[in-house]
Amino acid sequence: MEKKKILVLGAGRSATALLQYLEETSTKLPWFITVSDKNLDMARQKIQKFNHTEAVFVDFQAEPHLLANYDVVISLLPPAMHLQVAQLCLQYGKSLITASYNNTQMNCLDAEAKRKNCLIMMECGLDPGLDHITALNAIENIKSKNGKIISFKSYCGGLVAPESDNNAWGYKISWNPRNVVLAGQGGITSFLNNGTIRYLPYHKLFDKTTEIQIPQLGLLEGYANRDSLSYKDIYQLPDCHTFVRGTLRKKHFCKAWNFLVYHGLTDDSYYIENLQKYSLKSFTELFFDKQTVQNTNNIEVIKRIEELDLFSTEKLPYEKATPAMILQYIIEKKWIMQPTDLDMIVMYHEMEYEIDNIKKTEKLVLTKNGDAQNTAMASTVGLPLGIVTKLFLTNKIQKSGVHIPIYSDLNKEILIELKKNKIEMINL
Amino acid sequence: MEKKKILVLGAGRSATALLQYLEETSTKLPWFITVSDKNLDMARQKIQKFNHTEAVFVDFQAEPHLLANYDVVISLLPPAMHLQVAQLCLQYGKSLITASYNNTQMNCLDAEAKRKNCLIMMECGLDPGLDHITALNAIENIKSKNGKIISFKSYCGGLVAPESDNNAWGYKISWNPRNVVLAGQGGITSFLNNGTIRYLPYHKLFDKTTEIQIPQLGLLEGYANRDSLSYKDIYQLPDCHTFVRGTLRKKHFCKAWNFLVYHGLTDDSYYIENLQKYSLKSFTELFFDKQTVQNTNNIEVIKRIEELDLFSTEKLPYEKATPAMILQYIIEKKWIMQPTDLDMIVMYHEMEYEIDNIKKTEKLVLTKNGDAQNTAMASTVGLPLGIVTKLFLTNKIQKSGVHIPIYSDLNKEILIELKKNKIEMINL
Repeated sequence: MEKKKILVLGAGRSATALLQYLEETSTKLPWFITVSDKNLDMARQKIQKFNHTEAVFVDFQAEPHLLANYDVVISLLPPAMHLQVAQLCLQYGKSLITASYNNTQMNCLDAEAKRKNCLIMMECGLDPGLDHITALNAIENIKSKNGKIISFKSYCGGLVAPESDNNAWGYKISWNPRNVVLAGQGGITSFLNNGTIRYLPYHKLFDKTTEIQIPQLGLLEGYANRDSLSYKDIYQLPDCHTFVRGTLRKKHFCKAWNFLVYHGLTDDSYYIENLQKYSLKSFTELFFDKQTVQNTNNIEVIKRIEELDLFSTEKLPYEKATPAMILQYIIEKKWIMQPTDLDMIVMYHEMEYEIDNIKKTEKLVLTKNGDAQNTAMASTVGLPLGIVTKLFLTNKIQKSGVHIPIYSDLNKEILIELKKNKIEMINL
Repeated sequence: MEKKKILVLGAGRSATALLQYLEETSTKLPWFITVSDKNLDMARQKIQKFNHTEAVFVDFQAEPHLLANYDVVISLLPPAMHLQVAQLCLQYGKSLITASYNNTQMNCLDAEAKRKNCLIMMECGLDPGLDHITALNAIENIKSKNGKIISFKSYCGGLVAPESDNNAWGYKISWNPRNVVLAGQGGITSFLNNGTIRYLPYHKLFDKTTEIQIPQLGLLEGYANRDSLSYKDIYQLPDCHTFVRGTLRKKHFCKAWNFLVYHGLTDDSYYIENLQKYSLKSFTELFFDKQTVQNTNNIEVIKRIEELDLFSTEKLPYEKATPAMILQYIIEKKWIMQPTDLDMIVMYHEMEYEIDNIKKTEKLVLTKNGDAQNTAMASTVGLPLGIVTKLFLTNKIQKSGVHIPIYSDLNKEILIELKKNKIEMINL
């Protein structure tokens, strides 16, 4: 039996658990994995002891014909690259699996993908990915009891594990730090609240949070995220008067972050020049001064902003940069995951439904802590990707075209495999 | 003597006074004017009784060689088109005069313009334009007395004349209504305040205003506008610890406008679909409800927002539109200039300076009301453009390359001609 060849594009933070899963599966199935990254040393390091995986740089943009050598492509590249990756995959009749959001442009490739019998499977990571898979499973359970779901709220966050939580923000960086700074800037946020559609502009986003209490984790807060509305139809919840998807943070994070947003420190739209003359203090004072912080009269905001040392005399290591780039530099130092630090993923679904005119609430939570080998973020992004790849290569996904993981039979298989890896939701 | 041929691109709101000035001048100088607009009827209407002007549509994008027929081009087209207009002008060795802001890309054409002995004169309207011309003249006067200027503030606004001022906002639309809605969104705002550079993100802009009292006009307020800082060097004011350029509105306008900005009604970055199902009320409630307005606890904000009738049951005339497009539709109706309404231009410069260690303040104001023939906006944009054109065609501008009107001798000539047209600054 000929070996199936898998190409993994990108060997960054999210790749470790995926590569490990693929390597382990290769001891049972005839697979060979190629991981490609411009940073070849990093890629090599991640597969040091692997027997079925090689690290090479596959320059598919310069030499797209190289894609012809593989049976399936898994891409961890930045989301903006995925349209091109998908187009090249289709050119060579190859299927593609990613953890990125699907979009209108990608959907335009659906007909071509079907014609060429290729699968483009988007949203197969944590959020989006695991959120759909677990939510749809819970929705199906309620519907099977003739429950009518009238409210759906779902929040997910990559946080720091309680034992490593030692800064005021309750936050450390377990994924792409640039995305931490730019969170919420990717497009308008919309959701359904008590029958009314609401739009939240970016500068309001972190000011409008919902408190969420999860046993053992204390108080969290959620802020709405992207276009929730489009998922109401996908989840087939016509009776919902409230439908929101969002992001979880520790309580008080958002108000303090909103201070930075309001004053323009997350702005990535223009460059400030001559930064070699600037200290961190003089940079910050382009936007606000110490008195501005005190004037918030909010101790929770004040202590978090003060912890960032924004008024230090440290010089900036840039000649020119956007405010967002400088804020990233600051938080990368302040919110660094130390080698012994562990991260934590929390996913939370809350559904209100009616059975025989009796109103009930179901609350589900998934928590996953990182371990010495993998961050929780890498595990919860990488395992769904790996499992979908396995289901695809073992012909358990009989689909072509552009999809996201919203199919009951497929999701059940994924959930079984995830449970083996100690990733599952529990009822609160 | 051969006639000089002038091409005016665009016959919109700002063109009337310019065309009139050019036509009048043509009775004394051997000029022939061509005004070009896709809306040829509008162009023809504006030159009905003119003897030295024709209206035709010169499709210079499809047939750039047509530019070869003219001696100079004046463009009133949207600013985004001016780079292309300038490139085509240079291709045919023609000079260009516009009222739009200069920018880095345009400056890149400087060498080519010099090589071809062409002038690209930017910022020759009201603001930018007349503001530079009048401010630099005032600065020169102070410097000639050995005054050291330590603070420079300049504000300009297109307002409604007091006799036509009958809405709560004190505002009617005398120029491109789309630009009224998008004001402040063109890039980061920066200025110098007491020795400290400040950056103001868009959502803070209308919240940080300065009160300005002008006799007969009552209380106005100014908000900072664009990148003031770049003009500090251009104006040669190294000793200024405060340098700001901004926009004038009637008192309380900005706080109420900021309410709309904060809630996202000026957002032009995404479309809302299926608007045929929406009333104005249901559109507004995507962002805020009546209670949100009351919760501001600010009577000045409340009465202005209420006057916009945002909760009416009127249907929207769009299938899809951005929030900004819908807000434009609303204010175009509410803030329309009636045929008998007059507009008003107010320009204000305030300079602090030291002579022999004595601190002095100079305040200058220019007000210009519209009349039956021309809005004040059209006069104050069009006349500087026309006068610069005249100076160019009579060889009084001996420059080539990319410029803005910052030259003492040239500005003096412009000011003399403007004074003949009753446009001049007076000391307060």
